Amino acid sequence: MKNICIIGCGLLGSSLLRRIHKKKLAKKIFIYEKSKKNLKKIKSLKLPGIIVKKPEEAVVQSKLIIFCTPMSEYKKIILLINNYLTPNHIITDIGSSKLMSTKMIKKTLKKDIFWTSSHPIAGSEVSGPENGKEGLFENKWCVLIKEKKFNNKHILFLRSFWKKMGSKIVIMSAKKHDQIFSITSHLPHLIAYNLVKSAQDFEKKQKYNILKYSAGGLRDFSRIAASNEIMWRDIFFANKENVSKAINLFINNLNTFKKDISKKNNKSILKKLVQTKKVRSKIIKLKQDINKPNFGRD
Amino acid sequence: MKNICIIGCGLLGSSLLRRIHKKKLAKKIFIYEKSKKNLKKIKSLKLPGIIVKKPEEAVVQSKLIIFCTPMSEYKKIILLINNYLTPNHIITDIGSSKLMSTKMIKKTLKKDIFWTSSHPIAGSEVSGPENGKEGLFENKWCVLIKEKKFNNKHILFLRSFWKKMGSKIVIMSAKKHDQIFSITSHLPHLIAYNLVKSAQDFEKKQKYNILKYSAGGLRDFSRIAASNEIMWRDIFFANKENVSKAINLFINNLNTFKKDISKKNNKSILKKLVQTKKVRSKIIKLKQDINKPNFGRD
Repeated sequence: MKNICIIGCGLLGSSLLRRIHKKKLAKKIFIYEKSKKNLKKIKSLKLPGIIVKKPEEAVVQSKLIIFCTPMSEYKKIILLINNYLTPNHIITDIGSSKLMSTKMIKKTLKKDIFWTSSHPIAGSEVSGPENGKEGLFENKWCVLIKEKKFNNKHILFLRSFWKKMGSKIVIMSAKKHDQIFSITSHLPHLIAYNLVKSAQDFEKKQKYNILKYSAGGLRDFSRIAASNEIMWRDIFFANKENVSKAINLFINNLNTFKKDISKKNNKSILKKLVQTKKVRSKIIKLKQDINKPNFGRD
Repeated sequence: MKNICIIGCGLLGSSLLRRIHKKKLAKKIFIYEKSKKNLKKIKSLKLPGIIVKKPEEAVVQSKLIIFCTPMSEYKKIILLINNYLTPNHIITDIGSSKLMSTKMIKKTLKKDIFWTSSHPIAGSEVSGPENGKEGLFENKWCVLIKEKKFNNKHILFLRSFWKKMGSKIVIMSAKKHDQIFSITSHLPHLIAYNLVKSAQDFEKKQKYNILKYSAGGLRDFSRIAASNEIMWRDIFFANKENVSKAINLFINNLNTFKKDISKKNNKSILKKLVQTKKVRSKIIKLKQDINKPNFGRD
């Protein structure tokens, strides 16, 4: 039981904080948080942990360092703590794309320091420490990134750590991670943003008030379009090559679909609609979603 | 209190049946249902109502006739009942697109018979009588279609009827209806189908098992992609012109977004992400969705 340092205490950072505290996994938990708004919330929520003004203060006293900031903040903070890092530090982050951040980290980090990246699939449309919860990672996947050069001790440590957070662990390369999540996460998010934007464009042009009819489908998409904008900008920029490929694949499918409906191609449309339906059952079997109609929200 | 005839007893038909029975709104409720599977379910669920073998049997004894079948079934059934209809019959349907069905109905219906179309926004990814419920329409919008030629008595009757179902009423033309729902409902559904299809294409090509990571966003879309395929084929075909326009608007937005991320256009991306976020708050304020993170399903 050693000290842990959490850098960035929003939704995910504060959830880790709560869980580590509850399970008594650290002697001391240090928190570095840049945003004054979040600091105020952390205090008024009476969250556990010791708030430090400079990340290096916490780093020198901690064994495990977890970056929970938007990815665009990593570099600045690495440069602040670089001289205080030792090969014994276990460093990880919870960023949603890996290839580009891995490259930047390798370039920026002092020699002989290891960084073992994590990605817990536990995001939400809400953010901030007030929305964190101790059970956020329960039964969720956490991807651990294993590159050519890796520190096995650190991977084993983090595997055990995330298990204590409640997660199920899978290990893969940054490349594979970024490909998979460009489809299962980044594409759905950008689609949601662009669908909502299209609805706004339509409203402006037609001067109809259409949002009150959003229960027909639009409201599902609006949920993930409400996610944190800084975090998502960082993800889209960092994974832009895979994301562009995913957009192209998707636009091709849309164009074929458009042709099919304009030609009333019954067979082709029905085949598609039936096939995609099966995916929902698979997702529910994989326990990635609940089985209640309308997510049980009605 | 007169008799009501429900033609097609799936999710919506059986929900109407339950509500009408509970509120004692009809002396007799007749049900015409083609599918043997659904008939079996209706019997084993011990739903109220009198099952008829031919729709005309029920029509001659009813004041209100409600079509709850997929739209592609309307014509066949109209031809069966046409000679039994009188101007006193109040006829409606619950179809999700209006322009094309209105035209077909006008063409097919006997002279002097009125058909006043309805669209309760109460669909779900589940179908069949086993999923119907008495409260399905509670606090949901129901669109009543008013065309140039209309029967005001019938509109007033149906307004009162849907209010008793629990709905809030809005009246508009078929043209406006089909434009609005091409954006708030038809586009989201076809996007969901095509996103799920893109994920399947990716799985086949890359041979990765990606569905287990669907909690990152994909699972939201898979819900509406699980909707009834016959109903949705009918909607896409019937509203193909508005739907094609909606696809074009959406693809334009996707292409601009792709350019923005490839150029790392920070300002433009952030503006979009922030603006679309506001729509979520509006939808929640309009009581079209609940305010719980992840729809409260975690």
